[in-house]
Amino acid sequence: MTTFRQHRWQSFLQGYEQRARILISCPDRPGIVAAVTSFLYEQGANIVESSQYSTDPEGGTFFLRLEFDCPNIAERKEEIEAAFAPIAAEFEMRWQLRLHNDIRRIAIFVSKAEHCLLELLWQWQAGELIADITLVISNHPDLRETVESFGIPYVHIPVTKETKADAEAEQIRLLRDYQIDTIVLARYMQILSPAFVAEFPGRIINIHHSFLPAFIGARPYERAYERGVKLIGATSHYVTDDLDEGPIIEQDVARVDHRHHPDDLKRIGRLIEKTVLARALRWHLEDRVIIHGNKTIVFY
Amino acid sequence: MTTFRQHRWQSFLQGYEQRARILISCPDRPGIVAAVTSFLYEQGANIVESSQYSTDPEGGTFFLRLEFDCPNIAERKEEIEAAFAPIAAEFEMRWQLRLHNDIRRIAIFVSKAEHCLLELLWQWQAGELIADITLVISNHPDLRETVESFGIPYVHIPVTKETKADAEAEQIRLLRDYQIDTIVLARYMQILSPAFVAEFPGRIINIHHSFLPAFIGARPYERAYERGVKLIGATSHYVTDDLDEGPIIEQDVARVDHRHHPDDLKRIGRLIEKTVLARALRWHLEDRVIIHGNKTIVFY
Amino acid sequence: MTTFRQHRWQSFLQGYEQRARILISCPDRPGIVAAVTSFLYEQGANIVESSQYSTDPEGGTFFLRLEFDCPNIAERKEEIEAAFAPIAAEFEMRWQLRLHNDIRRIAIFVSKAEHCLLELLWQWQAGELIADITLVISNHPDLRETVESFGIPYVHIPVTKETKADAEAEQIRLLRDYQIDTIVLARYMQILSPAFVAEFPGRIINIHHSFLPAFIGARPYERAYERGVKLIGATSHYVTDDLDEGPIIEQDVARVDHRHHPDDLKRIGRLIEKTVLARALRWHLEDRVIIHGNKTIVFY
Amino acid sequence: MTTFRQHRWQSFLQGYEQRARILISCPDRPGIVAAVTSFLYEQGANIVESSQYSTDPEGGTFFLRLEFDCPNIAERKEEIEAAFAPIAAEFEMRWQLRLHNDIRRIAIFVSKAEHCLLELLWQWQAGELIADITLVISNHPDLRETVESFGIPYVHIPVTKETKADAEAEQIRLLRDYQIDTIVLARYMQILSPAFVAEFPGRIINIHHSFLPAFIGARPYERAYERGVKLIGATSHYVTDDLDEGPIIEQDVARVDHRHHPDDLKRIGRLIEKTVLARALRWHLEDRVIIHGNKTIVFY
Repeated sequence: MTTFRQHRWQSFLQGYEQRARILISCPDRPGIVAAVTSFLYEQGANIVESSQYSTDPEGGTFFLRLEFDCPNIAERKEEIEAAFAPIAAEFEMRWQLRLHNDIRRIAIFVSKAEHCLLELLWQWQAGELIADITLVISNHPDLRETVESFGIPYVHIPVTKETKADAEAEQIRLLRDYQIDTIVLARYMQILSPAFVAEFPGRIINIHHSFLPAFIGARPYERAYERGVKLIGATSHYVTDDLDEGPIIEQDVARVDHRHHPDDLKRIGRLIEKTVLARALRWHLEDRVIIHGNKTIVFY
Repeated sequence: MTTFRQHRWQSFLQGYEQRARILISCPDRPGIVAAVTSFLYEQGANIVESSQYSTDPEGGTFFLRLEFDCPNIAERKEEIEAAFAPIAAEFEMRWQLRLHNDIRRIAIFVSKAEHCLLELLWQWQAGELIADITLVISNHPDLRETVESFGIPYVHIPVTKETKADAEAEQIRLLRDYQIDTIVLARYMQILSPAFVAEFPGRIINIHHSFLPAFIGARPYERAYERGVKLIGATSHYVTDDLDEGPIIEQDVARVDHRHHPDDLKRIGRLIEKTVLARALRWHLEDRVIIHGNKTIVFY
Repeated sequence: MTTFRQHRWQSFLQGYEQRARILISCPDRPGIVAAVTSFLYEQGANIVESSQYSTDPEGGTFFLRLEFDCPNIAERKEEIEAAFAPIAAEFEMRWQLRLHNDIRRIAIFVSKAEHCLLELLWQWQAGELIADITLVISNHPDLRETVESFGIPYVHIPVTKETKADAEAEQIRLLRDYQIDTIVLARYMQILSPAFVAEFPGRIINIHHSFLPAFIGARPYERAYERGVKLIGATSHYVTDDLDEGPIIEQDVARVDHRHHPDDLKRIGRLIEKTVLARALRWHLEDRVIIHGNKTIVFY
Repeated sequence: MTTFRQHRWQSFLQGYEQRARILISCPDRPGIVAAVTSFLYEQGANIVESSQYSTDPEGGTFFLRLEFDCPNIAERKEEIEAAFAPIAAEFEMRWQLRLHNDIRRIAIFVSKAEHCLLELLWQWQAGELIADITLVISNHPDLRETVESFGIPYVHIPVTKETKADAEAEQIRLLRDYQIDTIVLARYMQILSPAFVAEFPGRIINIHHSFLPAFIGARPYERAYERGVKLIGATSHYVTDDLDEGPIIEQDVARVDHRHHPDDLKRIGRLIEKTVLARALRWHLEDRVIIHGNKTIVFY
């Protein structure tokens, strides 16, 4: 199956050796787009996708994402970054340039529920999720066999109230060792400490099993059942110190009715959860998501 | 336009002179369906639609809705009801028999927003909403011309903190005079007192401009904007003493993104609100909705 | 993982030892429901779910599905069937009684695409698809490893124009040996002969990768791309002699736009295909689907 | 009600006196975005929205839509257009500059069905459809009263096989007299001649009552019923000489089941039709739709 995946990936990577994207945010003022696109033109680049948004043309924040083809971009990346620095400084930009074929390293955190994990593994295997799933960390041993059958290391780090600080230290050590860029909480049933979150700002993605802000907190399906809602949902968001309050990346819902018991809601919800998480992660990995305060701009 | 509507209605009513429906709830136990359907058979009825639900086959509550054709049902209704009484008593049923062509009288409460009102008026005119829209009551004069152009009386009853009790007394008097069965709050921006609600138990339908229980209370679109949700919704529910907490009949959502300002959310929301309210009202008028505690069973 | 599945299944089967369902179709006339429900009541059964439909109360066909709890139904099944026979004869019924815990044996046919197969295997493993996946048959060897890792036999039967008749004979022999009830074509890229179809009437379920009847036939995603549609879909239907013309069980769609190339449509479509097929199969296995002419009645 | 609408419109127009948009298509090559955005910057403009698409970065067609604020754009429009001409020539652009507050004049064609017409009139009145509905033309007299109650002229031009050419000549004369920019066929049940279509290339929008290309042609709901589909839809497209084959702007669907008769499909379909048409028209009027061959690029 590895061969299969590599074959698929090849079709994703091949032909995109010259493709890169730049992500910019800065105070809005006239001339930003002209400056950036003129610069890229001078570098020989051809823009193939462009998205922008301004919170307010007067005094707001401006966001720009450009995808472009540029000859020898892999070799010239540092040179181009250096040349762009003065423009970035002039407009007070926060910015980032990334090659299309620069695959990011991710770690998945799970507990016992396997559906979100499996969806990511399956999409990864099918060449639909382009990321290096470097590591799976769990506070339970249950999913080891599943994960290892995909050729991915599975690290079991039990977490109790007492051992939580040590467990997180161990997790952070591993994440550093493995040079993890993005952490995906695939129904990981532990709350991360502010210290942990601070280590990976804007790089931890969670899936919450409700249509936030409805049923924030624990047992959302049971509470949805008790309230008698006619739709249930799931929400993927970046993790912040405020539980279930981080910037929302994506949400979706499914219709339910009076016949559905909490177990049915969970079954129906699993499909939404895994779909929403996979979609959010995909956008994140393609640099389509920008965090702005407690919201996201998503250029999909 | 009246002629047009009457023509449409005729096609709805004609051919259904023998159609009726019975709605039953009682403690669940074996034999209920057999008893009711045998009774109907003996009356010469042919069942054309059947829906049932039990909260729990052992010790739960059982709900049954049967739609049937029965010769001369209009003339024989009281006779049939009398004959059914012993069965109902035996099974401890709450029940109701209603003729298909027994059109219900409704009153619509509005403030200034016209979209929900207009949707109901349009569907009514198009023969899609089968009800006698007998009266529109508003705490503002703005929509008089619109309503009266449909040939429907418009009563302006201003409401202030001081006059609220008097205003409600006047409303109740009118609703009794007009023999109103069901009250629709079509974005009526006043909270009804418990006394008012108690007058029309399970017969006041509201539309709330959020996906409850998210953004319960005031200014839901502004709060949805601030939270950065990716879907907005609307909820139609029966009114109870607990604001926005009544049994939900129907909900729906629409996708939004970072570009949408509160005004856009309101515009997009208007379409959901009017659609959801019209759907809930339709089901209510067809006796498809049963209130059970703080939930609804909807046999659609 | 087998243990895991068995644990899940247990929770599905346990407590349902008394549950059964009867599926009936017959000419419509008064008294059917009364006769059947009175019969069940006399047998000590309690009806827990009831669905019915009539193509026309006067002279049409009547369809009834009842789910009920009945003490010792497993032991008494034949006795009850014998007792019901006279009623069935009187009303000219086609009918079938099945125990809830009578798990059906299915075979999955695949070619090279794995997404539909995997979805079914995953749902099966998660205890969401309650069936005995007895056998996977393929005209290609590619998915052997995947299937066998689930502990399911994989039979590779190559099919060429010349060998088709022999291949089908071999398939039929296997399906008989394994006592297969239902065949699922999970993107099996071969057309079955009328003779094959005749062996399993109403028991072969296919997934077509378009929103039928749009893009009937081959290469639907390419043709959807060429036509510039804004939604793509998938259709699950029973297989008949008329290619892509069998009774539709379920359909769904997803939104696409001008940026999506045929490969994107295929990727997006895979999610719809597998979801729609799993849903259709689930309803079929729960005896919720009745074929009537070239349509289905689905009691979900 | 006119006052009401004008009040709403004011809020749409006010504050946007400096807003304009440019729509460009040309052969793709490096430097286009840089050239256009640098030009706009030199004119003192600030870009507030940007969308682009290329059919193929190498040798394809490039599409660009920019929305920007520019001081005194209303007075300087011609001057800016003249200054842009050399750039447009260099890149072989087809292009168009339009002021945000330059409201377009539209005519609506109807027959007897009023739902699409009414939706447009209601949205127009609510300030959601920003267009000058200058004229309604119909081959039937039925909707005169409705249209005139909105203060819009209604012209009844009967069409028979024999009079069709004359009728179209009369229509074209009216459309010219009223300086109509865009024609909306709101369930107009006549086929326009190629000569008529040629008069308004890319400016006639139709709503077809099926999910094209399914049920192309007449009686789609009846045929959907006969085929037993589980979803019905509607399609808004530009009119070309090939009936129902023009570039699709927008589509949507709704779920139906075996209980729905053709009349139900029509009722459910009306909601989709009017929603889809209004959405397509909105995008068209905001210059978000570009026709490319037989497809559309929609920058929504």
